[in-house]
Amino acid sequence: MENPGAGAIASAGQASPIFDITIPKDYRDWRLISVAHETGDLNDIRAVLGNDAAIKTYREGKFSFPDGAIIARLAWKYVPADEDNKVFGREQSFVAGPQPIWYLQLMVKDSIKYAATGGWGFAQFDKNGNPSAGQAKLEACFPCHVPAKTQDYVYTHYAP
Amino acid sequence: MENPGAGAIASAGQASPIFDITIPKDYRDWRLISVAHETGDLNDIRAVLGNDAAIKTYREGKFSFPDGAIIARLAWKYVPADEDNKVFGREQSFVAGPQPIWYLQLMVKDSIKYAATGGWGFAQFDKNGNPSAGQAKLEACFPCHVPAKTQDYVYTHYAP
Repeated sequence: MENPGAGAIASAGQASPIFDITIPKDYRDWRLISVAHETGDLNDIRAVLGNDAAIKTYREGKFSFPDGAIIARLAWKYVPADEDNKVFGREQSFVAGPQPIWYLQLMVKDSIKYAATGGWGFAQFDKNGNPSAGQAKLEACFPCHVPAKTQDYVYTHYAP
Repeated sequence: MENPGAGAIASAGQASPIFDITIPKDYRDWRLISVAHETGDLNDIRAVLGNDAAIKTYREGKFSFPDGAIIARLAWKYVPADEDNKVFGREQSFVAGPQPIWYLQLMVKDSIKYAATGGWGFAQFDKNGNPSAGQAKLEACFPCHVPAKTQDYVYTHYAP
């Protein structure tokens, strides 16, 4: 099988509403924070990556991110790994689907610009790199992050 | 909650048997190839990372890795994300457990040294960085990779 090339979302394009966030060009090169699987309607498998400022903060064991820290959540469809399962003789492995990234979510730290939402701006983009969450959806981001206030509003833990 | 610091497996230690492989010091900084979830007895969630040579090959859409390419599979226990699920009001999210990496598997390309196994050496280490697969287990690696011969014996596809 041919392997897809580099990230489908290659460069910064249209800015996401409210928080005015564009896609960082090099986000697919960022280091790994952790991985996750969402069941239910979402049914995706995810990687959470961080830029240097975010990774440094995590590795220092802190939960207080400096301005400029960005956390990116990449989600793909969650599909059975047919090639692997054939070898295992059972449906055991699930992987990121062959299609390009399903969606990309970003949390960008700027304590001045985003003072009203804990210092974080939120954005979501589709697989073509276009903003895919409108004002109402983005306004719903922060309230759900409030319970994680003691972790600087971030749920994802570093996977050591 | 306090966040764990850098990777528990920090540096090269004891070499894995047969293929004589040690842990690359910087593997936790490598870029992401893809993510996976193994159900059943393994019940883990994984990230597959690649060193520069491996990532370059993937991004060029090739499935013929040069000598020096290394693919690392990091596996953590698959656990419910209690903090997230509390907000969602249902058990929907699953993440890498808070404990250090459960195990690390490596595929190292060296077409001369590992000529008898398709050019690949295989190794597995536990969370303390000690080899955790003996001769019999490591000898079982390559036969399972043979069906992926047209992909240079690699199952994992790049997640774009």
